[in-house]
Amino acid sequence: MSTSFTMIGGEGPNSYRDHSKYQGALVEAAKEKINEAISTKLDIDFTSNLVNIADFGCSSGPNTFTAVQTLIDAVENKYKKESNIEFQVFFNDSSNNDFNTLFKTLPPARLYFASGVPGSFFGRVLPRNSLHLGVSAYSLHFISKIPKEVKDRDSPVWNKDIHCSGSSKEVAKLYLGQYKIDVGSFLNARAQELVSGGLLLLLGSCRPNGVQMFETVEGMMIDFIGASLNEIANQGLIDQQKLDTFKLPIYAPQADELKQIIEDNGCFTIEVFENIIHAKGEYPLDPEFLTVSFKVTVGGSVASLFGQDGMEKTFELVKEKTQEMLPQIAKAKPGMQYLIVLRRN
Amino acid sequence: MSTSFTMIGGEGPNSYRDHSKYQGALVEAAKEKINEAISTKLDIDFTSNLVNIADFGCSSGPNTFTAVQTLIDAVENKYKKESNIEFQVFFNDSSNNDFNTLFKTLPPARLYFASGVPGSFFGRVLPRNSLHLGVSAYSLHFISKIPKEVKDRDSPVWNKDIHCSGSSKEVAKLYLGQYKIDVGSFLNARAQELVSGGLLLLLGSCRPNGVQMFETVEGMMIDFIGASLNEIANQGLIDQQKLDTFKLPIYAPQADELKQIIEDNGCFTIEVFENIIHAKGEYPLDPEFLTVSFKVTVGGSVASLFGQDGMEKTFELVKEKTQEMLPQIAKAKPGMQYLIVLRRN
Repeated sequence: MSTSFTMIGGEGPNSYRDHSKYQGALVEAAKEKINEAISTKLDIDFTSNLVNIADFGCSSGPNTFTAVQTLIDAVENKYKKESNIEFQVFFNDSSNNDFNTLFKTLPPARLYFASGVPGSFFGRVLPRNSLHLGVSAYSLHFISKIPKEVKDRDSPVWNKDIHCSGSSKEVAKLYLGQYKIDVGSFLNARAQELVSGGLLLLLGSCRPNGVQMFETVEGMMIDFIGASLNEIANQGLIDQQKLDTFKLPIYAPQADELKQIIEDNGCFTIEVFENIIHAKGEYPLDPEFLTVSFKVTVGGSVASLFGQDGMEKTFELVKEKTQEMLPQIAKAKPGMQYLIVLRRN
Repeated sequence: MSTSFTMIGGEGPNSYRDHSKYQGALVEAAKEKINEAISTKLDIDFTSNLVNIADFGCSSGPNTFTAVQTLIDAVENKYKKESNIEFQVFFNDSSNNDFNTLFKTLPPARLYFASGVPGSFFGRVLPRNSLHLGVSAYSLHFISKIPKEVKDRDSPVWNKDIHCSGSSKEVAKLYLGQYKIDVGSFLNARAQELVSGGLLLLLGSCRPNGVQMFETVEGMMIDFIGASLNEIANQGLIDQQKLDTFKLPIYAPQADELKQIIEDNGCFTIEVFENIIHAKGEYPLDPEFLTVSFKVTVGGSVASLFGQDGMEKTFELVKEKTQEMLPQIAKAKPGMQYLIVLRRN
């Protein structure tokens, strides 16, 4: 059984849409480098006058609109003279994603044909050789399933945390194993979909080499969520046995782990692999902001298992803990925001 | 302002999904003729090994799945040897359509890549020369807007009915004028999207030549809806002035009117234009069935203007009237269920 992990849909104050500026800022910050990569590395044939672009893990917007527009602008800039080019954009996410909201909020002045593609990006979602440019932003830290030993209370490698915090090497090894399989599947699927010379852009956060998850803001926040869940389980408000098996299907790799997986896959040439330093690259030291940021991403999973009430109570505690622990958060090791540009061999 | 007209979404007992068997039966009945048309008339080049199929006006399922599978089976049957062919299906409907339900109910064993395309089919929704086969079932009786004189209580051609019942020739002329514009736009858009030699299949209901709308079951049922709305307006439950401007954006053409529009457009060759006689071609004389059938299609529009309560009250009255008028309904003139196959010149 794979844990469902979907951003909170809709447009309300608790939606991912409303709280994904942090994720959106990376695309903005990387814009120039994306432009340059497309200008110098994209090498495709335009006999059909059609450029197909896909965003894998688009969520319900609006960051995806910025991301695809950035790619379109770069392509138009490169092929200035070909005024005949049309763009088709495929917005991909799991079939649980809120595509209705995505479609209703499409930029009205867009100059591309939009379509939504439901399905797991660990498998094929587009035809062979049909894609010229792909992008995936803040999506490739998801794993398709939790290694079963890690969820088993009686196993010696049972994970006491709700994610791979890095506090146990044996647990981390199992998460990394699953991560390798999943990123490999992702790359294999994209390799089939992309035309030769097409580009795949990956953006997201990982750990600088040598940094453990529990040393980062993300790691600390998720540990607060775990601790809060434990507290309300102790109070009998949620089921402890359920909590013992509740593990988030995410893994933040070290930069070199990710690089190695791409090299081992062999279908792509790494054109860019960079740490993008930007103004919004680090979280502000604001308990409210931090709590809401993790509520819109992790809250959906918590609610699906422990109910809406359990989720709300959890995040009340998370906010308290965040407030208390601000001095520690201030000393967190910086994460890494990556831009990776891969060219299909 | 164009009236919103979207099938009732979701999967509940009041959803279009649950009550569209009548519409679905036409595709079943036409299957052999569709097979034959694709086998003998489809003339496309498969260098890319990709067949793109679109359903224009797909709603939230499940009829669309039957329709596209019918086309895929026919293509596979025709090109038996090309085992390398992949299929991509574009499910198009307005951005108000319930794509979330459509995506969650996609056939799990499907052998095609699915995507949803939000947008009005009176304009372009797909790239130029990208489509091999298009289908549109029970969608081409929608018009994009109501002629304004028809909605104006003070105009000499104000329509006292909520649709084009045929009781006024002047009113009918205005509806037909708008219908010509809209079907022309639809055909122009599809002509750009389809490759030369590609096929466009139209299925739906129209009037046999010489038959007026008020003489058909559909016409009678919509007249009952209008009469019911008038009754609850007289009781002061809904606003009479609002009701005076409430006109459904639909027009059921006579067969020859539709044929003429296609010929005037000139982009397509008419390969098939047939009345499909089938078991479920006529409505059963069942007040409950009839009422629900029109509730799931027309109810959404009624609710959007007069509220959920107003809609429920209206259809309670519709059911009573349907019961009373069964002898008249039994004498209704038969409609025509058409299959039209057009080849892009």
